[in-house]
Amino acid sequence: MDALECIHTRRSVRKFTEEPVSREHIMEILDAGRWAPSGQNNQPWRFVIVSSDGSREGLSGLTKYGNIIKSAPVSIAVFIDRDSMYNDTKDHQSIGACLQNMLLAAHAVGLGAVWLGEILKSAEKVRQLLGLDDNLELMAVLAVGHPASSKHVSQRMELDELLIKDV
Amino acid sequence: MDALECIHTRRSVRKFTEEPVSREHIMEILDAGRWAPSGQNNQPWRFVIVSSDGSREGLSGLTKYGNIIKSAPVSIAVFIDRDSMYNDTKDHQSIGACLQNMLLAAHAVGLGAVWLGEILKSAEKVRQLLGLDDNLELMAVLAVGHPASSKHVSQRMELDELLIKDV
Repeated sequence: MDALECIHTRRSVRKFTEEPVSREHIMEILDAGRWAPSGQNNQPWRFVIVSSDGSREGLSGLTKYGNIIKSAPVSIAVFIDRDSMYNDTKDHQSIGACLQNMLLAAHAVGLGAVWLGEILKSAEKVRQLLGLDDNLELMAVLAVGHPASSKHVSQRMELDELLIKDV
Repeated sequence: MDALECIHTRRSVRKFTEEPVSREHIMEILDAGRWAPSGQNNQPWRFVIVSSDGSREGLSGLTKYGNIIKSAPVSIAVFIDRDSMYNDTKDHQSIGACLQNMLLAAHAVGLGAVWLGEILKSAEKVRQLLGLDDNLELMAVLAVGHPASSKHVSQRMELDELLIKDV
């Protein structure tokens, strides 16, 4: 898929078919995240693949969007390694770049995905559920699968509302 | 350019030729930023195009990487609209997704770009220089131009260092 087309046609996908996601595609998505830019190239992102019935069930209980996690064959929990951080704002931005690379890669290979942020209210419980060290802080969960529908509508503000000055 | 190829081959470009960047390409880059995802679809990003000699000169004096801004025919200053925010961490992540879309779009159309974060130490001075309201907070500057070289090397950690668990 063309890069600009990928950026423009990517939408949040919240319902998935039961078709499994191949290991190859999961790795393709993580590999895209890995190539995001970060301040001082500190690469603070860390990944957990959540795909077994038991772990998806556990994760789904920690967000009001649990039905999305249950519907998705795979979720990718994205953490930040606090020991790698140097600036909260910039490190959180880098995580966003990493997440966006992964969303674009999922769309590019024909999968659908959604970025779940509400689950951050349960960040500590997610860390404990997954048995992770306390230097790892949850940043987002991406639910990934084959889209159950091809109709995903979204809106954006027009460029003239966003372009404040041209100097 | 293929989307995955774009993600994998994008590198920070810090030296540019004197060839101007077309208006069409600048708008293509901003349009890519516009289609980033954001929590509650709040789209907190706002843009300022900096391309005149005077404004580039002024901006270049506010960072130790001023030579990059001077070398680039165009810089895009990216702000967050504080009045649109709902959660610092998630909003900063969304800005990162927006910045990454713009970096990928620049690469896709054959331009080079670099994400400048060090200038955030002068965020308030940049806001004043550009005469912006105080609800706008600088998040990053992207310097954009035609790459002066095609050799840009970067390194990333291997996936097995980043994939903490697979459950």
